[in-house]
Amino acid sequence: MSEIDAAQYRVAAMPYYRPVGNETELYEAAYAARMPLILKGPTGCGKSRFVEHMAWRLDRPLITVACNEDMTAADLVGRFLLDLNGTRWQDGPLTVAARIGAICYLDEVVETRQDTLVVIHSLTDHRRMLPLDKKGELVAAHPDFQMVISYNPGYQSLNKELKPSTRQRFGAMAFDYPLPEIEAEIVAHESGVAPAQAAKLVQMAHRSRNLKGHGLDEGISTRLLIYAGRLIVQGIPPAEACRMALVRPLTDDPDMQDTLDAAIDTLFG
Amino acid sequence: MSEIDAAQYRVAAMPYYRPVGNETELYEAAYAARMPLILKGPTGCGKSRFVEHMAWRLDRPLITVACNEDMTAADLVGRFLLDLNGTRWQDGPLTVAARIGAICYLDEVVETRQDTLVVIHSLTDHRRMLPLDKKGELVAAHPDFQMVISYNPGYQSLNKELKPSTRQRFGAMAFDYPLPEIEAEIVAHESGVAPAQAAKLVQMAHRSRNLKGHGLDEGISTRLLIYAGRLIVQGIPPAEACRMALVRPLTDDPDMQDTLDAAIDTLFG
Amino acid sequence: MSEIDAAQYRVAAMPYYRPVGNETELYEAAYAARMPLILKGPTGCGKSRFVEHMAWRLDRPLITVACNEDMTAADLVGRFLLDLNGTRWQDGPLTVAARIGAICYLDEVVETRQDTLVVIHSLTDHRRMLPLDKKGELVAAHPDFQMVISYNPGYQSLNKELKPSTRQRFGAMAFDYPLPEIEAEIVAHESGVAPAQAAKLVQMAHRSRNLKGHGLDEGISTRLLIYAGRLIVQGIPPAEACRMALVRPLTDDPDMQDTLDAAIDTLFG
Amino acid sequence: MSEIDAAQYRVAAMPYYRPVGNETELYEAAYAARMPLILKGPTGCGKSRFVEHMAWRLDRPLITVACNEDMTAADLVGRFLLDLNGTRWQDGPLTVAARIGAICYLDEVVETRQDTLVVIHSLTDHRRMLPLDKKGELVAAHPDFQMVISYNPGYQSLNKELKPSTRQRFGAMAFDYPLPEIEAEIVAHESGVAPAQAAKLVQMAHRSRNLKGHGLDEGISTRLLIYAGRLIVQGIPPAEACRMALVRPLTDDPDMQDTLDAAIDTLFG
Amino acid sequence: MSEIDAAQYRVAAMPYYRPVGNETELYEAAYAARMPLILKGPTGCGKSRFVEHMAWRLDRPLITVACNEDMTAADLVGRFLLDLNGTRWQDGPLTVAARIGAICYLDEVVETRQDTLVVIHSLTDHRRMLPLDKKGELVAAHPDFQMVISYNPGYQSLNKELKPSTRQRFGAMAFDYPLPEIEAEIVAHESGVAPAQAAKLVQMAHRSRNLKGHGLDEGISTRLLIYAGRLIVQGIPPAEACRMALVRPLTDDPDMQDTLDAAIDTLFG
Amino acid sequence: MSEIDAAQYRVAAMPYYRPVGNETELYEAAYAARMPLILKGPTGCGKSRFVEHMAWRLDRPLITVACNEDMTAADLVGRFLLDLNGTRWQDGPLTVAARIGAICYLDEVVETRQDTLVVIHSLTDHRRMLPLDKKGELVAAHPDFQMVISYNPGYQSLNKELKPSTRQRFGAMAFDYPLPEIEAEIVAHESGVAPAQAAKLVQMAHRSRNLKGHGLDEGISTRLLIYAGRLIVQGIPPAEACRMALVRPLTDDPDMQDTLDAAIDTLFG
Repeated sequence: MSEIDAAQYRVAAMPYYRPVGNETELYEAAYAARMPLILKGPTGCGKSRFVEHMAWRLDRPLITVACNEDMTAADLVGRFLLDLNGTRWQDGPLTVAARIGAICYLDEVVETRQDTLVVIHSLTDHRRMLPLDKKGELVAAHPDFQMVISYNPGYQSLNKELKPSTRQRFGAMAFDYPLPEIEAEIVAHESGVAPAQAAKLVQMAHRSRNLKGHGLDEGISTRLLIYAGRLIVQGIPPAEACRMALVRPLTDDPDMQDTLDAAIDTLFG
Repeated sequence: MSEIDAAQYRVAAMPYYRPVGNETELYEAAYAARMPLILKGPTGCGKSRFVEHMAWRLDRPLITVACNEDMTAADLVGRFLLDLNGTRWQDGPLTVAARIGAICYLDEVVETRQDTLVVIHSLTDHRRMLPLDKKGELVAAHPDFQMVISYNPGYQSLNKELKPSTRQRFGAMAFDYPLPEIEAEIVAHESGVAPAQAAKLVQMAHRSRNLKGHGLDEGISTRLLIYAGRLIVQGIPPAEACRMALVRPLTDDPDMQDTLDAAIDTLFG
Repeated sequence: MSEIDAAQYRVAAMPYYRPVGNETELYEAAYAARMPLILKGPTGCGKSRFVEHMAWRLDRPLITVACNEDMTAADLVGRFLLDLNGTRWQDGPLTVAARIGAICYLDEVVETRQDTLVVIHSLTDHRRMLPLDKKGELVAAHPDFQMVISYNPGYQSLNKELKPSTRQRFGAMAFDYPLPEIEAEIVAHESGVAPAQAAKLVQMAHRSRNLKGHGLDEGISTRLLIYAGRLIVQGIPPAEACRMALVRPLTDDPDMQDTLDAAIDTLFG
Repeated sequence: MSEIDAAQYRVAAMPYYRPVGNETELYEAAYAARMPLILKGPTGCGKSRFVEHMAWRLDRPLITVACNEDMTAADLVGRFLLDLNGTRWQDGPLTVAARIGAICYLDEVVETRQDTLVVIHSLTDHRRMLPLDKKGELVAAHPDFQMVISYNPGYQSLNKELKPSTRQRFGAMAFDYPLPEIEAEIVAHESGVAPAQAAKLVQMAHRSRNLKGHGLDEGISTRLLIYAGRLIVQGIPPAEACRMALVRPLTDDPDMQDTLDAAIDTLFG
Repeated sequence: MSEIDAAQYRVAAMPYYRPVGNETELYEAAYAARMPLILKGPTGCGKSRFVEHMAWRLDRPLITVACNEDMTAADLVGRFLLDLNGTRWQDGPLTVAARIGAICYLDEVVETRQDTLVVIHSLTDHRRMLPLDKKGELVAAHPDFQMVISYNPGYQSLNKELKPSTRQRFGAMAFDYPLPEIEAEIVAHESGVAPAQAAKLVQMAHRSRNLKGHGLDEGISTRLLIYAGRLIVQGIPPAEACRMALVRPLTDDPDMQDTLDAAIDTLFG
Repeated sequence: MSEIDAAQYRVAAMPYYRPVGNETELYEAAYAARMPLILKGPTGCGKSRFVEHMAWRLDRPLITVACNEDMTAADLVGRFLLDLNGTRWQDGPLTVAARIGAICYLDEVVETRQDTLVVIHSLTDHRRMLPLDKKGELVAAHPDFQMVISYNPGYQSLNKELKPSTRQRFGAMAFDYPLPEIEAEIVAHESGVAPAQAAKLVQMAHRSRNLKGHGLDEGISTRLLIYAGRLIVQGIPPAEACRMALVRPLTDDPDMQDTLDAAIDTLFG
């Protein structure tokens, strides 16, 4: 279908990604086998960045869908819209991806009601087809099409688990925060802060990550460290930047804030 | 109704299916009696493949519907769409199947709200009719029409059971994973991995299947074994391929991952 | 209203029905009094067949509605549809039945949300009228109109009971499986199996019906016996036919399957 | 608004109503004061008949709405429909009644979600107005308009109670089954059965009404007695007519059926 | 916007209102400060009448909205309707009030889902603006606009409380039933009953109000007293009028009815 | 897109804001880093005023969205509307803000179902893009775009917490009521009341704030103090003004009202 503007889904410039292991090789093998993939890992550790990087590396268009509980099968597959001549079919992002051979990335997939996800089943087994029941069309996936989904196993509730019949259509890669030196390198690169400050910020993150499950749902992410770094570059004193970018967003609990503020004072005071 | 493109529902090439008993004969007798059929069995054991194979064998069109909780009777039966001249009736997949004499296959039927399923009742008893109440039409099923539904009895909850009044309209066939030698043959055939590796992969699957109900919802399916085989063919070391294709998708529990990783190391280490 | 095609609701040929008592006389008296009727009884015992038979006998059109939880009052009464000239009213099956003097049969009525059923109240008391509130029309029922509803008292939950204000508009007839000899006669007639085999199938059904409430929601219905008979006629060995048509559809519980399979082996082994 | 066909809401012939006290005088005084009225009483005791009778007596159109849980304010007040020239407002039954000065009768009002009922507030206090918010019109009620609602206090749940702010806009009249002699007179008049049989039927009803709250939700209503009488007139033996019209509709409980059947045998055996 | 018919929202004649304190002065000061107002008090004590009276006194249009649980933000703010030329924006009552400088009165505001009420926030703080997000317009409130809301604190549940962020945008005035002499004066004025009878009716109301919380949700309101008075004026004996207008609407509990009937007999017997 | 009227989102005059610390500097640094911001703090303490002030200071358009539980992703992002030529896309406020480089302020963000908020994720990480899935367009945020959200950590329930994956995209600033002298200065400035009276009003507020969690959900806000001041300026006696503006809106509990009224009498009596 020539009217889809596939070019807009190309990743224009190489997204910065610092590999921490053989994850790019594994992804390339999975893509070669057209194996659908699950990316698991905590918030802000770089999963979205990784898939952008791989789409760039493999020179495939990337279609990202931020999942939410209201998402229906029609939001993925498409629907009829009213037009001058009556109803007109509009492909959803999943259908577009299947047609143009894109990598289709469903971000935070456990947010979606799992029954909505059933629509991806026929695309993720030997059939590689997508039935558009409402339109009465069977779309055969482009040979280059691949499905990738991500979630954070850390705070997934019982009601928000992938069903076995969904899981068993995917390979999976587990992500975590990078090693301290690598994470400091990333923070410095992305925020412009000095390496020594970046290292201290990473130290602060590690203290918070040890509190996960002891009053914090999640530790400080790499992304927040980069924000703190940018505030420091703007001239905000490091302790104040850390409170604003690392502590206040993380928790509303006064005791936990005190604990984290004390850690800041020790590191930057 | 000549405007339905029945040809697109034909199964083009013979789908690979390795019989494990007299299941093809039983299906043929059931079809000859036009008995509606339930296919029961665990995820990824080959139910969908089997019905494709039988549709090919019987030379009937196959219309597959992936069921989900949001599916309404209208999604099966059809609805009015807005057109240049006002509303226009659009047959749903069930109605199309009844008209053209297809095998209508409702996959993962327990996902559907059981009350939606009531619409299939008049097609699955002596009447073999489908009332389109909204259109005021009674569709008599084509003589070749057959209804087939599938589900996984393993993780069906109390809220997701077929009602007796639905069940008692069907014969049923129970599926399970194939015997080890047959399963290894399938894995080798589908992934291209060497028979010895395929046998080891099947051994790994059996270990996981023994853990079903002891921390795993489901064991490793044949489908995942094929993925692992393909990664090995891509040059990924077998242990790494197994972790990616067999263990990480299956569970987020660290202890269970360790147990399964240890089994991998024993087999492939 | 001349545009309703009443002919399509005529029951073309006499539906086979084997009376088990004076039920046809009672129905005829109830119809003569235009008393609305409830048909109660287990799944697959012949309620739908009976009402078809009576419609044929009384030479009235029959409009059957398979009830479900999503059914709204509009599904019964009618709604506005969009047309070339704007909105157009489309009668629902209840309204059509009231206009043409059909027997309106609501099958599995307890599936319907009981509040939806309130729309039948004015048709089932002295008024015999149906207000189409949205259209601003009061439809007086045709003198031949009768309302018939059915349900299975066996597995009706607390949430799915007819309200007294609904019940008290109906007379009621209770149905059960026929006596063994009659049931065997029916099975033989409908499946073509030999009388001796039919008698054995009925024996099998009785064993399962004794297990109702002891692990089975419902026993084997006459309908399933007919399916088993048809498989035997197709050449499937009787024991295998019974497992496929009588046991596997009935239950997913392995112990119960074993119990029933043992009974099969005793009878047919 | 001249396009409303008020004539169809006229009660054509005097509905048979046998007064049991001064209820017609009380109603007339209430109507003269334009006091909104609640009619309370058990199922099938004659509330709907009474309001029809009064509408005929007062020569007012009567608009009856059978309430249900899905009823929205728009179902009462009206809505925009799509027309050749775009959207067109369609008055709901409440608005029609307010415009033409009808008695508006909401039957089984506790079925309605109580919040929907808020729309009647401004019609039932000193304002006697109905704001059509969506249309931007304020409808002043016709001087002859009166609101009447009914419910059965017997089986109203906690979730289905009229709010004080609704109740306190109404006077109320309590209804019950008529005295035995009067009820027998009604049954004989309406069914054509002989007075002696009618008296026995009423006796049967009294026995069941004593069981209310002891296994029965409601006793046998006058309406069911009339049905039984009609079956007897059709030639059905009295005991059989009673089982069909009085017992089977009332309960699915086998013990309760036995108790009631025994009472029938005593009276008619 | 010139097309709004503001005249219809003018209160034509002075609504009868008998002040019981300095409430009119307080309201005038609040209006002068354009302070949004909460009116609290029991059912039928005169809150709606008071705001009508004040609108008349201040010569402002009054737009009243009866709140209910189904009310959405669009019901208050407006929505797009379909027109000959496509969609056309229709202001909701809140938007109309903001544009024309009316007093906007939300009656029984706790019925509304509290989240719907968030739309009034920007109109009730320093901004006095209403964003029509769907239309992309920011409406600045007319300088004369004022928001008034009412509720009955007596039977408000935990689920139906105004959120602090809503409450803290309002001043509040508490209403109660008037003192006995004043209430009797009102009853006599409104119903035409003689002063002595009016005084007795008020006595009856006081007895019931003492039972509030002891079996009654609310006592007899002034409004019901006026109804009773009107029935007496129609010639209904006082005791009977009281039972019909004061007791039967108030409660379905037989014991409570007996208690209140006894009080009637004492006063009027 | 030139058709958006960005001018209407400009803050016309400098909104009065009295800084209490270095909050304007911190905001400016955050804006320079385009860091998304959370503003936390109690009701009526000045968060909305602050963001207006900063938008004026930074000379950026400000688009405010009052969040509510019914808000869907489409309310933020946009939807298709029906037009003369069929459907037409209408940008939602978030999309408008992203296009024109506005500050987009989501007020009371925890009211929104957290899954709706997932749509802001791609705008608040390194991507700064907004996919309009239904339109098939990827909007790159204008370089000046910034996202700001606010909530009150005080009465946020378990069901209404920001998810870690949302939180970790923001820096955060905590607000509280200003110090007494500053708050009195604000009250005097905004209401016109004399400084001494303003100081007493602030004292009253402090007494109520100490009762937070001891029978009050929230203490008296600065906004209510300003209302009280304005009533006093209108000539209402201070004690009466306080009861109307500070106590009655805050609580329906009679004991708590007495406590607060006593405090008023002490301060103003």
